[in-house]
Amino acid sequence: MRAGIITIGDELLIGQTIDTNSAWIGEKMSLAGFDVCRKITVHDKREDILNALSDFTGKSEVVLITGGLGPTSDDITKPALCEFFKTRLVVNNEVLEMIGQMMMRRGFPMNEKNSKQAEVPESCRVLTNAVGTAPGMWFEKEGTRFISMPGVPYEMKYIMEQHVLPEIRKLFTSQVIVHKNLMTYGVSEAVLSDLLEEFEAGLPEEIRLAYLPSWGINKLRLTGTGKSLEEIKDLIDRQVARLYQTIPDLIYAEDEQTFEEVTGRLLAQRHKTLCTAESCTGGNIAHMITSVPGSSAYFLGSVVAYDNRIKTGLLKIDPAIIGQHGAVSEPVAMAMAENARKIFNSDFSVATTGIAGPDGGTNDKRVGTVWVSVASGSGTLAVKHVFGTERIANIRRFSLAALDLLRKQIISG
Amino acid sequence: MRAGIITIGDELLIGQTIDTNSAWIGEKMSLAGFDVCRKITVHDKREDILNALSDFTGKSEVVLITGGLGPTSDDITKPALCEFFKTRLVVNNEVLEMIGQMMMRRGFPMNEKNSKQAEVPESCRVLTNAVGTAPGMWFEKEGTRFISMPGVPYEMKYIMEQHVLPEIRKLFTSQVIVHKNLMTYGVSEAVLSDLLEEFEAGLPEEIRLAYLPSWGINKLRLTGTGKSLEEIKDLIDRQVARLYQTIPDLIYAEDEQTFEEVTGRLLAQRHKTLCTAESCTGGNIAHMITSVPGSSAYFLGSVVAYDNRIKTGLLKIDPAIIGQHGAVSEPVAMAMAENARKIFNSDFSVATTGIAGPDGGTNDKRVGTVWVSVASGSGTLAVKHVFGTERIANIRRFSLAALDLLRKQIISG
Repeated sequence: MRAGIITIGDELLIGQTIDTNSAWIGEKMSLAGFDVCRKITVHDKREDILNALSDFTGKSEVVLITGGLGPTSDDITKPALCEFFKTRLVVNNEVLEMIGQMMMRRGFPMNEKNSKQAEVPESCRVLTNAVGTAPGMWFEKEGTRFISMPGVPYEMKYIMEQHVLPEIRKLFTSQVIVHKNLMTYGVSEAVLSDLLEEFEAGLPEEIRLAYLPSWGINKLRLTGTGKSLEEIKDLIDRQVARLYQTIPDLIYAEDEQTFEEVTGRLLAQRHKTLCTAESCTGGNIAHMITSVPGSSAYFLGSVVAYDNRIKTGLLKIDPAIIGQHGAVSEPVAMAMAENARKIFNSDFSVATTGIAGPDGGTNDKRVGTVWVSVASGSGTLAVKHVFGTERIANIRRFSLAALDLLRKQIISG
Repeated sequence: MRAGIITIGDELLIGQTIDTNSAWIGEKMSLAGFDVCRKITVHDKREDILNALSDFTGKSEVVLITGGLGPTSDDITKPALCEFFKTRLVVNNEVLEMIGQMMMRRGFPMNEKNSKQAEVPESCRVLTNAVGTAPGMWFEKEGTRFISMPGVPYEMKYIMEQHVLPEIRKLFTSQVIVHKNLMTYGVSEAVLSDLLEEFEAGLPEEIRLAYLPSWGINKLRLTGTGKSLEEIKDLIDRQVARLYQTIPDLIYAEDEQTFEEVTGRLLAQRHKTLCTAESCTGGNIAHMITSVPGSSAYFLGSVVAYDNRIKTGLLKIDPAIIGQHGAVSEPVAMAMAENARKIFNSDFSVATTGIAGPDGGTNDKRVGTVWVSVASGSGTLAVKHVFGTERIANIRRFSLAALDLLRKQIISG
């Protein structure tokens, strides 16, 4: 079963609006068992809309269209739909009444634009919209169902959830698709795919594996397709178990969980507290941790010691250690973590010292070098990493490296 | 001049990743004078990629392609490109060397997949990628230029900014389009458009004004179109001067500058230093400040005092003040700023205390309330704001409010 998506609107093409509608629709349609095979974005222009509609006709079972409806853009999309489906605009009394009621509720008088909104192509089936003025419209042509919806996200979602998804599930019940995500950290996509070569070779034909890398994190997605939900879920579960056997140290979470959510949950479960002592990450780890609601239960605070005087002053690092080893060194990272843990009186502490770039590198310690350290009741660990040259990416990667070390230390107790 | 966008990747179709690349590309291409007429998203599948390429051939001057490159998906996109452009894969030595250097820097061994990444279609022109392993590739067919880039946003942006946009600007120079952005902060889009009603009415027909709101910041973009660069620049300059007259307090920068860049530049120019004392912003202000290259010249560090014990301990706030007024109060915000300034021995300090939510609000102090304070040699100021209920948005808005107060104090100081 194939589905397509058409999004209409100049604002999507010139970058003024990021298209979140199609991601939402794509997810719902995938979960309903469809292969979402193509997405097209076009201008509010008659010809462009007609071309997009033609592209899908007879090739996809369902096409979801959003945007191009509403008081200002109606003039183009609805006549284009009429032309394509060889029909004409007629006033729909049910829609007219709903619009009248909505305007009354909001205290606005009906105007000519509102009554024009009650016009729909005669051959379509109207899908009522209780949260806006533009209704959904269901067309069929050469075996393809076209559903046109307004672009306002909550109106689109209302029509999808109230009308489209239930009807589609009734019409197409042949196939089930199940997705499962495992979040991994620690090796590059290339290394990961080497490690998983045998795993991939052993996948049953119902299950596909996708690599979704982003900022040093590789999301692994298993997708199972078949007739029986039970069977596919069972197949997926067995592959998840195999993945845990193959790369036990690399999987840090299931589904879409972030590092900060995972470490936060681990701390909360154990009633443990955390502080950070950050140099090169400049407060980003504290920011990540405190982006999670409820983080005040386990996060005490941070010292961002960007200047060496703050390392020796507030964090009480012996200036001789910095003098001997440099600020970016194992002993300084460990002293930062240990001293912060004492100052904050926390169970765990995380420290970073490194060179985010673009400047500040030396032959000895190049840009991208970081020492991360974690201190806890069971001791202090420090690990060195060398990443790339891009400052923002480095700050992010340094922070993830620190949180990964923290996660492992919390688990190992 | 028409431009098209192709984004490749299953994750974009099934809604796991929201496509921000194409919005960014759409904006840049529009600003370069192109009509971005169509955007297509397809699977990592040979046939789908070939179809998408065909759709644009001879119809658009430029087609930007992102995604489908990288160690695991290379196998599909690159052969598809070879098939479409009737060429074959060959190892590119320059790319091979760059990948080798990058892997060495990161301490990973080269593997077979990495060297496969150095293979490029023979007929393409390679656009080097200094921030990742997959290069950009420039093809031409029937008057259409196709540029294939990796899907990792900062890699795509690097290739666009270093190679694609400069070359495209050289190739297509028929009409002059001049953009000028003014960054404003302090009032909503609706209030701003009221304030600018008269200004807009007085715009010459060559100049358009667009409002681009995002996270409390309203970017105003003036776009001038015409034949003569001199004339259009002159017209724009006059409108910029009018804007400064109309809303002098609201414009904090020109062009795309962020608050952290502006405040950083102001501090650097004056040889002044800064520290932060953050409660509800949890290190985000320090993170914003230190995202700017060179920030170590003026930023000393931060105390993130998330827990009240850290406010009274490390920041030495009198517990009686917290007891009397609560942690979210004017006296606490001012004491945080003043004490941090002393502890760090800095010229300026910024402090925040508030309730980011979703929990922690009371009848008296609801979620979204924040006190921001700035201390300097000329005294201490504190301002209260009440924003919304969404945690991430609040952290961002609290930080901007603090940086705006800082900016005004630096200028007036």
